[in-house]
Amino acid sequence: MVFGKSEEKQEMIYLDNAATTKMSEEVFTAMKPFFCEQYANPSAIYSFAGGSAKAVDEARKKTAALIGARLEEIYFTAGGSESDNWAIRAVAELYNTKGKHIITSTIEHHAVLHTCQYLEKHGFEVTYVNVDAHGKIKLDELESAIRPDTILITIMAANNEIGTVQPLQEIGAIAKKNKILFHTDAVQAYGHIPLNVEEMGIDLLSASGHKFHGPKGIGFLYIRRGVRIGSLIHGGAQERSRRAGTLNTPGIVGIGVAADLASKSLDERMKKEIELRDYLINRVLKEVPYCRLNGHPIDRLPNNANFCFEFIEGESLLILLDQQGICASSGSACTSGSLDPSHVLLAIGLPHEIAHGSLRLTLSEETTKEEIDFTVEEIKKIVERLRAMSPLYEDSRKGFV
Amino acid sequence: MVFGKSEEKQEMIYLDNAATTKMSEEVFTAMKPFFCEQYANPSAIYSFAGGSAKAVDEARKKTAALIGARLEEIYFTAGGSESDNWAIRAVAELYNTKGKHIITSTIEHHAVLHTCQYLEKHGFEVTYVNVDAHGKIKLDELESAIRPDTILITIMAANNEIGTVQPLQEIGAIAKKNKILFHTDAVQAYGHIPLNVEEMGIDLLSASGHKFHGPKGIGFLYIRRGVRIGSLIHGGAQERSRRAGTLNTPGIVGIGVAADLASKSLDERMKKEIELRDYLINRVLKEVPYCRLNGHPIDRLPNNANFCFEFIEGESLLILLDQQGICASSGSACTSGSLDPSHVLLAIGLPHEIAHGSLRLTLSEETTKEEIDFTVEEIKKIVERLRAMSPLYEDSRKGFV
Repeated sequence: MVFGKSEEKQEMIYLDNAATTKMSEEVFTAMKPFFCEQYANPSAIYSFAGGSAKAVDEARKKTAALIGARLEEIYFTAGGSESDNWAIRAVAELYNTKGKHIITSTIEHHAVLHTCQYLEKHGFEVTYVNVDAHGKIKLDELESAIRPDTILITIMAANNEIGTVQPLQEIGAIAKKNKILFHTDAVQAYGHIPLNVEEMGIDLLSASGHKFHGPKGIGFLYIRRGVRIGSLIHGGAQERSRRAGTLNTPGIVGIGVAADLASKSLDERMKKEIELRDYLINRVLKEVPYCRLNGHPIDRLPNNANFCFEFIEGESLLILLDQQGICASSGSACTSGSLDPSHVLLAIGLPHEIAHGSLRLTLSEETTKEEIDFTVEEIKKIVERLRAMSPLYEDSRKGFV
Repeated sequence: MVFGKSEEKQEMIYLDNAATTKMSEEVFTAMKPFFCEQYANPSAIYSFAGGSAKAVDEARKKTAALIGARLEEIYFTAGGSESDNWAIRAVAELYNTKGKHIITSTIEHHAVLHTCQYLEKHGFEVTYVNVDAHGKIKLDELESAIRPDTILITIMAANNEIGTVQPLQEIGAIAKKNKILFHTDAVQAYGHIPLNVEEMGIDLLSASGHKFHGPKGIGFLYIRRGVRIGSLIHGGAQERSRRAGTLNTPGIVGIGVAADLASKSLDERMKKEIELRDYLINRVLKEVPYCRLNGHPIDRLPNNANFCFEFIEGESLLILLDQQGICASSGSACTSGSLDPSHVLLAIGLPHEIAHGSLRLTLSEETTKEEIDFTVEEIKKIVERLRAMSPLYEDSRKGFV
C-alpha cells in the first residue's frame, strides 16, 4: 500500500478516531431497513410500528449490557453533549433545595465545563478539582472539596484530548460515601474500556454513538433507577416521559449494534490498540527530539497518543500531515477554529507556548503498523522542517533560551 | 392491488404521515456516503473533512431556502422537540429582565405546552389563548393578552392533530407591532405548505426532518439574524457556538435533500393532496352517520383529515383498522398510551365522550384514491360494527339521549 497524497496511489491514514469514527458496515446494514421500509413511528399502536418498537428495545438492551445497566435505565438522546447537559442541569434543578454546589475537574469536555459555567451564572457554585501532571484527578482534592451542599460530582471517564483514564471506582466510592450523585462523561470511554455502573458507583453516564463506530446524532444518558431527575427536552411521552421527541429508530438500532460489536471485540481490540499505541509512542519519543507525551503513560485510552513538540505550531504540523494524507488533530474537534491553547494541556501544567504545539493521534482497530510507521516518518520530517523555520528553535540550539 | 390483512396479497395503507413519513429513496441515497465513507467530523481541519463540511453547508442552504431564510440563520438540532424547547427557554432566559410573560395557544404540541408549564414553575406567566371551533387562534384574544412584560408569542403554524393552519402573517404583524418575538412550531407545516419568515414576521421557527420524508433525529431552529438567544445544549463551538455536539452529517444532508424535494414538489403535491383529502372528507361525512370533521374545512394541512365518530372508542377503531392493514392514529403519536382525551379536541369545544372517538388520517403524495376508497369502506363497516356493540348508540337511536 502506498500512503501520502503525493504518490500516484493515494491512501488516507485516519488517526482522528477521538473526533469521530468510521461507522461499521454491520451498523449500516442493521440501520438500513429502518429508513425507507420500517419507517413507522415506534410510539404508534398499529402492528406496522411493532417492528420498530421491538428494534428499539433490542438496542436498549445491548446498549445497557455494555455497562452492566438495566435496559430501563438507558435514555436515548441526540449525543454526548445533550446527555452531559441533561445530567448536570437536571440534577441541579432537582437537588437545589439540598444545595447548589457541584464538583467537576479542570479537564472536562466543554459540554460539561460550559454547562457548569452556565449554572454558575444561575446561582450555583462549582469547584474545579485539579489534575496531576498526567491528567489524573487529585482524589484528596476531590474529597476535601465536598461540602454539605454538594449535590453532584461530574468527572469524565477518560479525557478526549490526552486520553487519561480516571479512577472511576474510587470517585464512585467517594460520592457514595458522601451521598452525592456521580455523573461521568464516558463519551470517549464507552465501548473502548470496561465500564460498569455498579462496580464504579456511577449514577449517571453519558455516551455517544459515533465515538465507537456507531451513528452520529445518537447517544444516551444512563440514569440509575431511583434517580428521579426531570427532562431537558420537554414534550411527548417518549423515553418514559423523560426525553421528548420521536425516537430516532435507525440511530437507536445503530448504536445498539455498535455497542454489541464493541462489547464482543473489547478485550482483543484493547490489546491490539495498546500494542500499536505504545509502539507509536515509543518511536516518536525516541526519534523526535524535544518531544513529550501528554497524559498518563499507562492509564490512558488504548487508542490515544498525544504529544507536544517544542518550537512547533500545532496547526502547521496538522496541515503538513494532511498534505501527506494523514488525518490528525491538535485536540478536540469541538474547539477547532479557536486559537486558545487547550485547557487540558494548561491544566496538566504545560506552558502556553508548548500547549500550542500538541498533536493527538487516535487509532482504531483498523489502524496498521504500516500506517503508524509512515506517520512517524512524516512527523519526523515535518517537525524538522518546521523547526528549521523557527527562530525560537535556532535560539534554543545556540543556548539563548 | 389487494388491501387488507385477510387477503392473500397483503398491502399496507399508511395514513399516519403526521406521526412520521417514509424517508425518500433520494434522501437515503444522498445520506449513504456519509455513514461509512465520508465519515469525517465536519469540524476537523484536514481535507478529508472538507467534503462533509461542504455537504453540511449545502444542506443548510436548501433548508433555509424553503422558508426564505439566510443559511446562517439555520441551526441544526435533533428534531422539533429540541427546537421548541430551545426557542422558548432561550428567549425566556435572555429577555426575563424585560418581562416574564409568554403567550401561546391551548392547542400547541406538548413540546411547547410542557416547556411553557416548566417555565411557569420557574416564575414565568403564560397566557394560553383560545381557539375557535375550527381550531383557529382568536386573534383579538391574542392581541388583548399582550402586556408590557410579554416577551414571546409562540403559536404553531399548523396543528398536528386537526391540521388547522394558523394566520401566521397576522400573528407576525401583531408581534412586530408590539415588539415581541414570534416563534412558530412549524413541525407539521414545513415542507407541506408555503412558509416565509420575512412575509410572516417569524423570528424563530422549529422544524423536523422526518415529518417531510427526511430522516428521524434531525431538525432545525431558524433564528432570525439579530435575535441573540443563548444555547440549550452547551459545549463545543459547533453551529456558531449556539448548539453543541458533533454535527450529524448524514442527518443534515438528509434534511437538506428532503427540503429541496419538498420545495420542488410543493405546489403540485398540495394540489394533489387537497383533492384526495377532500374526497376522503366528503365521503366519510356523507357515508358515516353521527360523524364530524375536526379542524378548519379549508385552512387545514393538505394531507390532514380528522374525524369524530359518536358512540365509538377511538382505540377500538384503530385496532380494527390495523387488522385491515390501515395505519391510522387518534391524534399525536407522542401521547399514545395516554388515556386522556386530546387537549386539542377539548380546546375546540368537543365534549369528553366525543373527543375519545377521534380518527386522524394523514396522507402523503403516494396515497392513492384506491387506498382511500378501501379505507372509507372499512371505516363504514367498523363504525357500524362498533356501534352495534355500544349501549349508548342503542339508547340514542331509541331517543334516550
